[in-house]
Amino acid sequence: MKSDRYKTGWDKLAEIDGKQGEKVVEALKDIAPDFADLLIEFPFGDIYSRPGLDLKSREIATVAALTAMGTATPQLKVHVHGALNVGCTPQEVIEVMIQMAIYAGFPAALNGLFAAKEVFDERGLEISDYQDRVAHR
Amino acid sequence: MKSDRYKTGWDKLAEIDGKQGEKVVEALKDIAPDFADLLIEFPFGDIYSRPGLDLKSREIATVAALTAMGTATPQLKVHVHGALNVGCTPQEVIEVMIQMAIYAGFPAALNGLFAAKEVFDERGLEISDYQDRVAHR
Amino acid sequence: MKSDRYKTGWDKLAEIDGKQGEKVVEALKDIAPDFADLLIEFPFGDIYSRPGLDLKSREIATVAALTAMGTATPQLKVHVHGALNVGCTPQEVIEVMIQMAIYAGFPAALNGLFAAKEVFDERGLEISDYQDRVAHR
Amino acid sequence: MKSDRYKTGWDKLAEIDGKQGEKVVEALKDIAPDFADLLIEFPFGDIYSRPGLDLKSREIATVAALTAMGTATPQLKVHVHGALNVGCTPQEVIEVMIQMAIYAGFPAALNGLFAAKEVFDERGLEISDYQDRVAHR
Amino acid sequence: MKSDRYKTGWDKLAEIDGKQGEKVVEALKDIAPDFADLLIEFPFGDIYSRPGLDLKSREIATVAALTAMGTATPQLKVHVHGALNVGCTPQEVIEVMIQMAIYAGFPAALNGLFAAKEVFDERGLEISDYQDRVAHR
Amino acid sequence: MKSDRYKTGWDKLAEIDGKQGEKVVEALKDIAPDFADLLIEFPFGDIYSRPGLDLKSREIATVAALTAMGTATPQLKVHVHGALNVGCTPQEVIEVMIQMAIYAGFPAALNGLFAAKEVFDERGLEISDYQDRVAHR
Repeated sequence: MKSDRYKTGWDKLAEIDGKQGEKVVEALKDIAPDFADLLIEFPFGDIYSRPGLDLKSREIATVAALTAMGTATPQLKVHVHGALNVGCTPQEVIEVMIQMAIYAGFPAALNGLFAAKEVFDERGLEISDYQDRVAHR
Repeated sequence: MKSDRYKTGWDKLAEIDGKQGEKVVEALKDIAPDFADLLIEFPFGDIYSRPGLDLKSREIATVAALTAMGTATPQLKVHVHGALNVGCTPQEVIEVMIQMAIYAGFPAALNGLFAAKEVFDERGLEISDYQDRVAHR
Repeated sequence: MKSDRYKTGWDKLAEIDGKQGEKVVEALKDIAPDFADLLIEFPFGDIYSRPGLDLKSREIATVAALTAMGTATPQLKVHVHGALNVGCTPQEVIEVMIQMAIYAGFPAALNGLFAAKEVFDERGLEISDYQDRVAHR
Repeated sequence: MKSDRYKTGWDKLAEIDGKQGEKVVEALKDIAPDFADLLIEFPFGDIYSRPGLDLKSREIATVAALTAMGTATPQLKVHVHGALNVGCTPQEVIEVMIQMAIYAGFPAALNGLFAAKEVFDERGLEISDYQDRVAHR
Repeated sequence: MKSDRYKTGWDKLAEIDGKQGEKVVEALKDIAPDFADLLIEFPFGDIYSRPGLDLKSREIATVAALTAMGTATPQLKVHVHGALNVGCTPQEVIEVMIQMAIYAGFPAALNGLFAAKEVFDERGLEISDYQDRVAHR
Repeated sequence: MKSDRYKTGWDKLAEIDGKQGEKVVEALKDIAPDFADLLIEFPFGDIYSRPGLDLKSREIATVAALTAMGTATPQLKVHVHGALNVGCTPQEVIEVMIQMAIYAGFPAALNGLFAAKEVFDERGLEISDYQDRVAHR
């Protein structure tokens, strides 16, 4: 039987990552199903469910960290989806990544932007949806 | 003569990092004064001055990234000041750092929290200012 | 009221890290007491308590990872204590660190060894306890 | 003529990494054959051949470090093979990777687990070989 | 209208990275065209154009850093091209990467060398062009 | 009896790092004297002694990598000494570090510059020795 933390976590995962999160959990079934439980319980049940920081800010923090680290492209893409799901605009995601050039270097920012591009394409976002402003500074 | 980007950057630096930012610029004078100019022009003149993401979100992104990277404690402390200066609450800073345990591990989060503690102490923040909620979850 | 995971975790923390672990929990009280709970529940209650890998191997894994990462000296020192507490010899700790030169470079290994030296000194270990073999290869 | 260290190293490489190690040495022939010699002499001739830590513990240390670093997937896969070759069970490999979530974050652990899955598949391991226990905690 | 820094940067980019640099700028058009401008202005207009260090040394520094970091393979390949474009020999590039084994570990050096191999192949370099010496130490 | 590689390595270490290198070897005596031997034999006997790249370029590569990694301040300081010992000017060291802002972020460059400042001070370098040019760009 699943714990309360699991149930809370599952709902939070669904709210943030939607289908993307479910796919990760599904993929873990063939190698470490226990870890899928831990992934739902701790990050989503314990952390993302905490009060004190709104979900949009939480996703900005995650996108920033994963872009800066540069070692977690699949997870970065899941959280670009997540950021958009909880209310970030594509521009905001792009701005976070551009800003990471300051702290983690241009390659980290570039690789983040190209990952974001893939997610925007998956979601059928039109370039004109988010480039008007940036194209005319 | 300083460039417009420098002037824009200096104002933005003052708005965000206040005295802390000035100290870094001052320290650079004895080793690489040019780099102090670049530091004001590019991160603050070019990036933090961009529209498309509010300053509070920008500081959340920076605190997240520097906590996750774990290689930039002095800069993390400057940006904990910065986050508070532009409107983050101490709780929000703490939440960002706790969340980094998911993405960069518990040591990164712990070292971030201890750096935040030093900044909170420097600013004379009372523990009761930010722990009421967290102490009674 | 503390969860069962907390109680399991606390016992496991005591078994592994002893006084060192308690000090970390104590230090967190002034900044993020909730995170102290999470630290006991997830790493120690959920992970170190799992069957499938003996504690000595778990500490070897942790010492290896923290040495390689090079961003978590305080935590590395806690786990050098931990490794010794659960049955690793000083030589085994040293061997793990030397081996990290292969994967993370000589500076990571060197900095790990100097951290281990501090822990060995804190515990009053005599150099002759662990250098006989290595001094006469 | 190859050095004694080379011969010792070659035997140790064969014992640990088998065909996987040979492939790396072969691939280096077209770009830096000298480095293939150094790879055999230093890591395998000088380090893995040292007494003071058993080979199984050495592979646990390596799998832990490479999982935590997250920058060396091809080498991690070679050493998942290596760990299994020197007596680690699939469960032990999985446990090491799950544990890395604590120190290097969930993405590092996830990416490690998915690399391990590829190796387990290459070796024709049946899921039932290693998931009975973990599926029923 | 583009700034003087942009023009200086564009010329420097063309001198160093040639077609490779243009491709990156092109790819950015669909996601963050502003960032393409910043990439030309700051790294190439502000930094690579500075006196005080010759371009060949600058490329050696970049190849070293990107090899050691291990998180920026596409950018490393661009700068292997760059190093060769500004006068490094293939051997010098290989030596820099081998040397990184000391500071960032063997996997970083190996992955760097395999990236260099791809670039050498793209440029139609014959193995005999650069392996005579290294094959007969 | 020490190997030929040891003797070659010791001479190379003396040429590059001088007193600084000897101090590291001395410090290792109390924790892992074998590793001191390996440190002389592999990095200095096997790598720095290779033809194909001049010592000045090798030190530029090392200073770049250690600045970018940000996890090896003591070793970075040793190699700032080393770079100066083999013919780099203070300006060249500073330029390498400034350039790292592009690839590893401003904090890495800043922390590198402050480490270089300490070394320059230890050597009694006058600021006017290296800032004339940079102060008047």
